[in-house]
Parts: sequence; C-alpha cells; structure tokens
Amino acid sequence: MAAPTERLAVIAFDAYGTLFDVFSVTSSCEARFPGKGDALAQLWRAKQLHYSLLRSVMCQFKDFWQITFDALVYAAKSLRLDLDIAARDALMDSYLRLGLFPDVRPGLASLTARGLRLCVLSNGSIGMLQAAAAHANIDRNFDAIISVDAAQVFKPSPLVYERIGRTLGVPDASVAFVSSNSWDISGARAAGLQTFWIQRVPGEPQEELGFPAHHIVRTLTDLAQAIPEPR
Amino acid sequence: MAAPTERLAVIAFDAYGTLFDVFSVTSSCEARFPGKGDALAQLWRAKQLHYSLLRSVMCQFKDFWQITFDALVYAAKSLRLDLDIAARDALMDSYLRLGLFPDVRPGLASLTARGLRLCVLSNGSIGMLQAAAAHANIDRNFDAIISVDAAQVFKPSPLVYERIGRTLGVPDASVAFVSSNSWDISGARAAGLQTFWIQRVPGEPQEELGFPAHHIVRTLTDLAQAIPEPR
Repeated sequence: MAAPTERLAVIAFDAYGTLFDVFSVTSSCEARFPGKGDALAQLWRAKQLHYSLLRSVMCQFKDFWQITFDALVYAAKSLRLDLDIAARDALMDSYLRLGLFPDVRPGLASLTARGLRLCVLSNGSIGMLQAAAAHANIDRNFDAIISVDAAQVFKPSPLVYERIGRTLGVPDASVAFVSSNSWDISGARAAGLQTFWIQRVPGEPQEELGFPAHHIVRTLTDLAQAIPEPR
Repeated sequence: MAAPTERLAVIAFDAYGTLFDVFSVTSSCEARFPGKGDALAQLWRAKQLHYSLLRSVMCQFKDFWQITFDALVYAAKSLRLDLDIAARDALMDSYLRLGLFPDVRPGLASLTARGLRLCVLSNGSIGMLQAAAAHANIDRNFDAIISVDAAQVFKPSPLVYERIGRTLGVPDASVAFVSSNSWDISGARAAGLQTFWIQRVPGEPQEELGFPAHHIVRTLTDLAQAIPEPR
C-alpha cells in the first residue's frame, strides 16, 4: 500500500452504496411485492450497474434515471411481477429518498473539521443526486456534486474521474477517491487518484483488475484516521 | 420486427453461451469443489462478463484468457475455495474443451447447405476460440473465426461488430448476428446488423436497452427457417 506522496486537498465520494444505502429501497419493494422485495431490490441494482456498463461500451449513453427505470422494468419482467405505473413510479421515487449509512454524517463532519474539501462523484444524474443529498440533509457538506452527465459515459471510465480535479481546480494527485464498490476503486486508481476502499461487506475480496485500493477502511468514520495529517 | 431488407450473405455467431455451453465446466468445478461446483461456475461466468465490461470502460484491455483467469481467481476467493495451481490450471483448461449445444452441429450444416457463409465473432482470444472450435470439430464450418483481440475492446462495442463485414468483405447490412446473450444482440443491432436472438432460457426477457432482436428463435436449427430464402 503506497502512502500518498502529495498532500490531499479533496476527498471525493461515490454516492450509491457508499453514502446512500441502495438497499433501503428493499422495504418499498417488499411492500409492493410481498416475499419478492429482496429479490427485486437485488436484481434492480445489479441490472442498473449492468446497463451503465453496457451503455458505456455501446456508446449509447442515457442518464442514470433512465437506466434505473429500465433496470426496474427488466427486473420486474424477469421475476414475473406485475409492475403497474403506480408501483413503478413509487419505486423510482424511493431512489430520491435513499437512507444514509450510519457512519456517513459523523465521517463527513470529521473530514470537514480536518480542513479537507469534500465532493461527490457519481454515476447518478445531477437531479437524482441533488434530490437524495437534500433529502438526507448532507448537501451542504459538499463543495460540489459531480455527475457523469457531462462526460456522457459512466464510471469506471477515466473521463469521469478526471472531472474531480477539473471541477475543483486541483491536481489529480491531491484527490482521494472513496467508494465501497471495488470496481469503482479500480477505475479511480487506474485514472491516477489516491484510493480508499470502504469494505462494507466483511471478507469481500477486491476485484481482480490489477488496481487494488491504496487503503482499506471499514467505515467513513475510520477514514479520517487513515488520511495522513497535513504536513 | 423489421424484415431484413438486404439479402443476407454472412451469418456470424457469438461463441460462449451460443455455440459452446460455458456451464459444461460445472462438472469440472464440482469434481474439484464438491457441493460448490454450480456456485463456482455461475460466479466465474458472471465475473468474466463483468471484467470484460469493466476493462472496456476503463480502457484497460487484457485478452479474454487473462480475464477468464482473473474471474476464476475472484470467484474462488469470494466463495472461500482454496484454488491451488493445479486446480486453477485444470479449470482453465476446461475452457478449451467446452461442450457444444446439441442444436449447433445440425444448425450450422443447414445454413451452409443454404449457401450462407458462416463465421464466429467472440470476446474470446483467438487462441481460446481456435482450440475450442477444433476440440468440438466445428472449425471447418466457418470462413473466419474473429476475435475482439484486434479491436482491443470487448463486445458490445460497435468497434467489434464492424469487424465482421470488414473481415469478410461484405456490407454490414448483409450480415446477420446470432447470439443467446440479449446484451450482445443489443450491441449488434445498435451497430447496424440484422439480429437473431437464440432464447435458450424459456421466458427470459430481452434487455431493456432499446435495441431488441429483429428475430427470436429457440435453437440454431430453427434459425435456417427464420432466415428468408434468397431472392
């Protein structure tokens, strides 16, 4: 694990799975489809990620709201659930009111207290991200909420990660990227950022992509301790 | 479903899941890891596809042999299986001796009898594809076995599908692409090819990517009937 060689100025966070618990939609899924809520939530999330990758490789970008919608439609068809318009709209709406992981609020506060600038870099469309951050009341913690929308391609494209330094006016070497998604860490490291993997699932292996995380922590509250003090 | 407007001259086949049954490795997995063979084979295949997409979006191409190796290593770690070098090499070797689906040999023969030229277009490295085709004794059925190796990106990139017409010297509109993978059909249709989806799993929905198959058949033997007679 190489220690950061440049002083970190900006900490950029992935949103879904890192700040927001995407499986907080499971209870809404279960309420609509008793006994099938967990299967629907799992397949919905897997297909959402799958479609973001497929559309990137196909050069057929649609924003993450559309992809989340398409993934829900596919998941319901695959599980043979009758997804009427009311259920569809209600489940999509739940994506704007996702729960926060319990370590997020104290973790962000301790990093801000250290004088670090914080931002979000997410596959989400800007409207989805702003709505979820405002609902969770963390929007004022960030200097910027950066969506892939402008890049017209999803993570883990290097075109996405380079937007952090460009948006905040700092060199890439002073940016740390934080995600619970190991593939997202791989992309950020390949793009030249310092990386911190939040291993939310104990024992989960890192992806075998040749770009392991520089640092592994368990929670956002552990993160401040893992970041070297300014010299 | 739009009917083909140009006479088809070339039928291009996906390899893994379409000609070759990737789950024919399950018995080898089960022999090495009793009770875990199915889980290992499923996760191995899912990760193999995942890594092909991730590396394409990351612009970090490695060939499919390496990706298949990395996916096996990840799957074993994730399932906490002790994958020693002998087991690893034996399982990798099974990818060179995949079983054919029973409809493949008669399906290819009936298309050749119709005067159509056949080829393979696969994510596989050229070495893997030639070995598997020779082992199954179908290598002489094809005018060409085309790997993504030269494109340095995986399906469903449009850069891959355009290689069929270029390699065989025919216009894209005279190429039909055949795959059991609905995402592969989406990519081929987005790239301008005629598409035939082999729906190997009854009731499986097509991907919600906006590029559904022109035609749906159940087997390769049904394919010859679905292709319009030459005018």
